[in-house]
Amino acid sequence: MPKTVATTLRTAVAGVSGYAGAELARLLLCHPRLVLTPPMFLGRMDGPGADGGSVALTSLHPQLSGLANADNLSVSPFDWDQLQREGIELLFLATPHEQAREWAPIALAHGIKVVDLSAAWRLQEADNRAIYKLTDSDPAAAATLQAEAVYGSPELHGPAIANARLVANPGCYATSIILALAPLLRANLADLDCGIICDSKSGVSGAGKTPSPGTHFMYAADNLSAYAVFGHRHTGEMLEQLHLTTEQIQFTPHLLPIPRGILSTIYVRLNEVGSIKKIQDCFDEFYISSPMVRVRRSPMLPQIQHVVRNNFCDIGFQLSPDGKRLVVISCLDNLLKGAASQAVQNMNLMAGWHESEGLL
Amino acid sequence: MPKTVATTLRTAVAGVSGYAGAELARLLLCHPRLVLTPPMFLGRMDGPGADGGSVALTSLHPQLSGLANADNLSVSPFDWDQLQREGIELLFLATPHEQAREWAPIALAHGIKVVDLSAAWRLQEADNRAIYKLTDSDPAAAATLQAEAVYGSPELHGPAIANARLVANPGCYATSIILALAPLLRANLADLDCGIICDSKSGVSGAGKTPSPGTHFMYAADNLSAYAVFGHRHTGEMLEQLHLTTEQIQFTPHLLPIPRGILSTIYVRLNEVGSIKKIQDCFDEFYISSPMVRVRRSPMLPQIQHVVRNNFCDIGFQLSPDGKRLVVISCLDNLLKGAASQAVQNMNLMAGWHESEGLL
Amino acid sequence: MPKTVATTLRTAVAGVSGYAGAELARLLLCHPRLVLTPPMFLGRMDGPGADGGSVALTSLHPQLSGLANADNLSVSPFDWDQLQREGIELLFLATPHEQAREWAPIALAHGIKVVDLSAAWRLQEADNRAIYKLTDSDPAAAATLQAEAVYGSPELHGPAIANARLVANPGCYATSIILALAPLLRANLADLDCGIICDSKSGVSGAGKTPSPGTHFMYAADNLSAYAVFGHRHTGEMLEQLHLTTEQIQFTPHLLPIPRGILSTIYVRLNEVGSIKKIQDCFDEFYISSPMVRVRRSPMLPQIQHVVRNNFCDIGFQLSPDGKRLVVISCLDNLLKGAASQAVQNMNLMAGWHESEGLL
Amino acid sequence: MPKTVATTLRTAVAGVSGYAGAELARLLLCHPRLVLTPPMFLGRMDGPGADGGSVALTSLHPQLSGLANADNLSVSPFDWDQLQREGIELLFLATPHEQAREWAPIALAHGIKVVDLSAAWRLQEADNRAIYKLTDSDPAAAATLQAEAVYGSPELHGPAIANARLVANPGCYATSIILALAPLLRANLADLDCGIICDSKSGVSGAGKTPSPGTHFMYAADNLSAYAVFGHRHTGEMLEQLHLTTEQIQFTPHLLPIPRGILSTIYVRLNEVGSIKKIQDCFDEFYISSPMVRVRRSPMLPQIQHVVRNNFCDIGFQLSPDGKRLVVISCLDNLLKGAASQAVQNMNLMAGWHESEGLL
Repeated sequence: MPKTVATTLRTAVAGVSGYAGAELARLLLCHPRLVLTPPMFLGRMDGPGADGGSVALTSLHPQLSGLANADNLSVSPFDWDQLQREGIELLFLATPHEQAREWAPIALAHGIKVVDLSAAWRLQEADNRAIYKLTDSDPAAAATLQAEAVYGSPELHGPAIANARLVANPGCYATSIILALAPLLRANLADLDCGIICDSKSGVSGAGKTPSPGTHFMYAADNLSAYAVFGHRHTGEMLEQLHLTTEQIQFTPHLLPIPRGILSTIYVRLNEVGSIKKIQDCFDEFYISSPMVRVRRSPMLPQIQHVVRNNFCDIGFQLSPDGKRLVVISCLDNLLKGAASQAVQNMNLMAGWHESEGLL
Repeated sequence: MPKTVATTLRTAVAGVSGYAGAELARLLLCHPRLVLTPPMFLGRMDGPGADGGSVALTSLHPQLSGLANADNLSVSPFDWDQLQREGIELLFLATPHEQAREWAPIALAHGIKVVDLSAAWRLQEADNRAIYKLTDSDPAAAATLQAEAVYGSPELHGPAIANARLVANPGCYATSIILALAPLLRANLADLDCGIICDSKSGVSGAGKTPSPGTHFMYAADNLSAYAVFGHRHTGEMLEQLHLTTEQIQFTPHLLPIPRGILSTIYVRLNEVGSIKKIQDCFDEFYISSPMVRVRRSPMLPQIQHVVRNNFCDIGFQLSPDGKRLVVISCLDNLLKGAASQAVQNMNLMAGWHESEGLL
Repeated sequence: MPKTVATTLRTAVAGVSGYAGAELARLLLCHPRLVLTPPMFLGRMDGPGADGGSVALTSLHPQLSGLANADNLSVSPFDWDQLQREGIELLFLATPHEQAREWAPIALAHGIKVVDLSAAWRLQEADNRAIYKLTDSDPAAAATLQAEAVYGSPELHGPAIANARLVANPGCYATSIILALAPLLRANLADLDCGIICDSKSGVSGAGKTPSPGTHFMYAADNLSAYAVFGHRHTGEMLEQLHLTTEQIQFTPHLLPIPRGILSTIYVRLNEVGSIKKIQDCFDEFYISSPMVRVRRSPMLPQIQHVVRNNFCDIGFQLSPDGKRLVVISCLDNLLKGAASQAVQNMNLMAGWHESEGLL
Repeated sequence: MPKTVATTLRTAVAGVSGYAGAELARLLLCHPRLVLTPPMFLGRMDGPGADGGSVALTSLHPQLSGLANADNLSVSPFDWDQLQREGIELLFLATPHEQAREWAPIALAHGIKVVDLSAAWRLQEADNRAIYKLTDSDPAAAATLQAEAVYGSPELHGPAIANARLVANPGCYATSIILALAPLLRANLADLDCGIICDSKSGVSGAGKTPSPGTHFMYAADNLSAYAVFGHRHTGEMLEQLHLTTEQIQFTPHLLPIPRGILSTIYVRLNEVGSIKKIQDCFDEFYISSPMVRVRRSPMLPQIQHVVRNNFCDIGFQLSPDGKRLVVISCLDNLLKGAASQAVQNMNLMAGWHESEGLL
C-alpha cells in the first residue's frame, strides 16, 4: 500500500493541563518530525467560561521550560476556526470523555483527524460504554462513527490505525493487560474455564490531577488499597479486545503509593502442560515487529522501575513447576505507553512514519 | 501549691475528623485516667449545617476500630447544653481558628476549660495575630481573655498551664524551633546580630486534610519545595516565646514527601567560642525534668524516624571546629508533640497528673 | 480448665537488633504485666564472636529512648547460665532459623518455654521445611519436639498455645493468608478445583535489616516487583494450616515501596452461588472471640494504612455480581501481627492472660 | 578561535555499572552526534579480577533495553590497548576517586582526553583534597596535571573546558551551590561577615549503589537526616570556585527520602538593601547564554519535581521585606546536571559542539 509520507504534520492538543497532557506536550515538542511545526495547545473547553486562555505553556508545566521552543508557546482558548486557519491535520483530545464524544465528530467534519485519549470512543458495545454515561446528540451518526473508530493499540491494530480518521487511545490498565494476554489467547493457550485473574497495581497519576480525598498524599502514601473490585470501567476494553466474557476475566486494580507506573500480575491456567520455550516463543513471535514492547526472557520479570518515564510495555512470565499455570507480568508507565506515548505512536502510524519515531 | 488531684476528667473533643483530631482521639481513648470516662466527640460546627452528626467514630477513622471502646462511640453534633449535661470539664478545640476564637469564651462561660489546638489564642501581639484575620464580637473581653491565655508549651510554662483555664496549644513548627532555641537564648549563648536561621522541613499532614493542589500525591511525592518564605504564620510564636525581633530569626519551611514528622535545622552563631560540654550541659539542665524532650549526646543528631508516631521532641547539636557556630537539630511528629500529644500533655498538667501520663 | 494465672513473667529476647526485635522490645517494655520485670535482651549468638555484648538498648534503637525503663537496659551476650540465674521463664527467639532450631531444645531443657519468631519450628512436613535447609544434631529428638511444637496462630490454635512449651510464631505473609481463608475453608465454601490465587504485597521491612541490592532505597522506592513466584517459603505454612495441596493454592509476593504493611488480595471461587450475608456471617462467627482480627463490613475493604503500626489483622471481602467469585482482602503490619505482636499475643495465652493484653 | 568541529567523537565510559554511569550511557546512546559511533563501555578496573567483563549492557541496566543500539552493546574488561585500537578520543571516568587519579594521566599519555566524574581532579588545594586520601605515584607529574585540570562547570569555565584535556566534573551538591552563588559573589552583593548558610537536601542516589545501612530503604524512607555537618567533602569545591573561606560559607547536607534530586536553600545577607529587580538582573545576565540553567522569576521558586530526570539547574530567590536578606533556592537532578549530563555538556564543549546538544 504505497502512501505518500508527509515530512511533518500540523497537530493540536486540547487539554494540555493534566498529567497525560504534559507528557504529550513534551513528546510532541521534542518529536523530530515536528521541530518546525510545534503543536498548538488549546484549552479543554470552548465557549464562555473556557479554560486555558492565553496561559504560557510553561506556567502550567514549569518542568518543560527550556525544552525546544516550549517557552514561546501558549495555551489558547479552544476555537474551531483557528484550528482550520492554522491548517491543523491531527487533533489530540486529552479532555473529559463527554467533551471527546462531542468533539470528535466536529473535528472530522472539519477534516481533522483525531487521536482521543479519553474513553469516549474505545468501546463498540453500548453495554460496555454505559459506565461512562455518554450521550449523543445524533445517535445514528455517533453509531456510524463508533463503528469506524479504531482502538489505538498499535501492536494489535497497526494497519487499521494507519488508515484511521478516529483513533481511540486505550486505557492504561487495559493496555497492560491486553498486551500481556493477546499472544496467549490468539495462540489458544489459555484454559478459560477457571477464568483469568488480573491483579493490577497503579501509581497515583492514573487518578488524575483533580484534588480529592483519594489522591491526597496522606491517603495514598505508605498505603495500598484495592478499588472498583468487580466494576472497573477499563474491563470493557479487555472484554472487547480479547473477546472474553465477564466470567472469563476478573480484574482488580490497586492504588500504589508511587507517582507513576502500572504492574499487572496475571494468572492464567493453560489448556495443556506448557513449556517455557513454547510460551517464550509465543510472546517473541507476536511482538517481533513491535519496538515499544519488550519481551523479557523468563524467568526475568518486568518491574515498574524499568518502565517509569519511558515509552515501553514490558512483558515477562514464569511457568509453574507442573507446567499448568502461568504468571504473566506486564509493566508500563501509565502516562506514557498507557496514554501519551501510545498516542504519539498512533500519530506516527497515521502519518506514515515509523511507529517509534520520537519515542526511543 | 497543694491541689486536689482528680482521678479522672470529663473531656470533649470538637473537630475530631482531621489528622490531629484522630491522634487526639486515639490518645484519649487509651489514656489510663480516662478508661471509665471516654471523651465525647463532637462536630466542628454547631447550628444548621453542622457537621459530624451521629457518625460512628470508626467510620471516620477505621484504624481506631478495636481500640478501647472506640467502636461504641459516635461523633455528635455540637451542642453546648449537652456538654453541660454531661458535665464536661475540659474541651479540646481541633477546629478552624475562627471557630476556636469564638468558642473558647463560650466554653469558659460554661465553666469548661479549654485546650485549643488552633492558633486562635497563641499570640499576644495583635500584629502577630493579624495573619489569621480573626475577629472578635466583644474585643475588650477577647483582649482580657487573650491576656489570660497560656501558651501551651509544658517545658516553658508548666506551672502556668497547670493553673490555666485556656491553653493555646503551640504550632508544630513553632514547637520544634522554640524547644531547640529556648535553652540557648535563656543562657545568652547566641549572637543575634547575624540572625538565627531556621530551615524546617515538614511532612504533608501539617497541611491538613482538605484536598488541594499542594497536598495532591503527585505534587508532594518525590518532591521538596520551600514555601511561605519570609512569611509563615508560625513565625509570630517564635518571636513572642523567644523574645526575638524579625531581624534576629529567619524561618523557612519546606514540604517533605513524607506523611509526618518535622526536622528543623537551626544555625546559631555563638557569643563566644563554645565547647561541646557547655552546650550539652545547657540543654541537659534545661530539660532535666522534661520527660517529653530527649536531648541527644553530641555528635548524635535527631532524625525524623526516631520521632514518627511517638510523643517526643528530640534535640541534638554539633559545634563547628572553631567553636563559634552551632547547628541544632530538632525533630518531632507534627501531629503528636506538634499537636495532639502536646495537647494531652497540657491536659495532664491542668488535671494535676504527671505530664507524661498516657504518653510513654 | 482452671489455671493459676501468674501476675508477671520473666522474659528474655534473643536477637533484638532487627526490625521485629525492636517492635518486640517496645511491646514488652510497655506491657502492663511486665512493668516490674522488664525483659532481658540478649545477642543473637553465644560463644566467641557473639554479638550484642553490653550495648545499650537505646543505642541500637534510639526511638525507644524515654519509654518505660528502656534507657536503663542493655543487650547482653547470650549466656544460658545467666538466663537460669535470672529465672527466665519464656524466651523469645528473634534469631536466624538455624539458631532457633538449635536453641529451642536447649531452652526447653533448661525449663524455659519458647516463642520462636523464626521459621525453624513452623512446619511439620519435612518436605515443606526443606527450603530452610535446617539440620538437627539429634534428628529423633528434633522430630519429637517438632511434633510437640504449636503453630502460633492464636485465632486457630488458642487452647493448644496456652498449653504449649514451644510456639512457632507464624510468617507474616502466611498469617495474612491463613486468617483470610481459614473461615471459608472450614465452612467448605471454596471450590478448590480452580485453585485459590493469593496475590500479596509487602513493605520492605519484611526483607530484613541486612543491606542488600534488593533492600537498597534505589531498588525499592517508586518500584513494584514480584519475586519468588511459585517458590516462596511461606507457602508451606499455608498448605499445612489450610490443609491444601500445591495445586489448590498459588501465592505470589510483591515488594511494595513502603516500610511496612502487607495486603493480600485473594481470589476464591465458591462451591455454590453465595450471598454477602452468608460470607459475612462466616467471617464474623469465626472471629467473634478474636480481638486482634477486625472483620470489615462488605463492601468496605481493608487497606494498609488501617493496620500500619497497630496489632490487628483486618479482613474484608466483596462478592461478584453473579455470586460465584469472592475477592478477600486482608491486611496486617508485617512486623506486628505478622511478627512481634503475634508473639506477644502468644505469650499472653501461655501466661494465662487475656490474649490482647498490652496490644490494644 | 576557529576550530575544526568534528562530526562525531569516539568515546568510552569506564564504570558504567553505577547510577551516574547508567544515565551517562543513556545520554550517550541517544546523543545525535554519536548515532553511528556508540560509546565503548568498560569495567571499572583493569588487570586480574577486573569487573565488567563481557556483560551485556542491558543486563546491568534493563531499563535501557530497546533504546538506540543498547541491546547490541556489552561492557568489556578495561584494556588500554583496545582503547587505542578503537581510536577512543574521550574517556569518561565514572570510577572510584583513586582509580581516576591513577588513570587520568595514563589516558592523556595515550592521547585520550578525559572527563572525570569522580572528585580526583576537582581540587587545586592539597588541603581540600586531603579528605579523599589520594596518593600519586609521581607527585610532581600529578601536580602539573592538577594545575592543568579544568573544573568542569560549563557556566563558569566554558572556554577553558573547550580547550582542556582533563576536565574534572563537579560534585552534585557543589554544582547546586556554586551556580546559585557565583552571580551574587561576582557582583559583590553578599555580606560575607555573617557567613552564607547552605542547607542542602539530596535524594538517596547521591549515596551510590553499594548497599549499606544508610541506603537501606528502611533507613531512608519516611525519614530525613542531616549528615557530615561541618565536614562534607564537597565543601572544598565551593571554597575554591567561589573564593571563600570556611568562615564565610557553611554547608549542611541532608538525606531526603526520594531517589533523586537536590534542593539547596541558601541564606545570604546583602551588602546593602537590595531590590528584586537588581537581584533578578544579576542572575539573568550571568546565565543569559547558559541553556542548562533556568533562572526563575521571583517569587517563583524551584522545586525538585521540576528538575527530576532532566538536565537543568533551576535557580530562584526571594528577598526579605527589608531588602537585606536573600533566600536563594537551586535544584538539579544529582545524577544529571549533578553528574552525567554535566559530563555530556563538557564533552560537547570539548568537541566544539553546542553545549546543550543531546540534552534538550
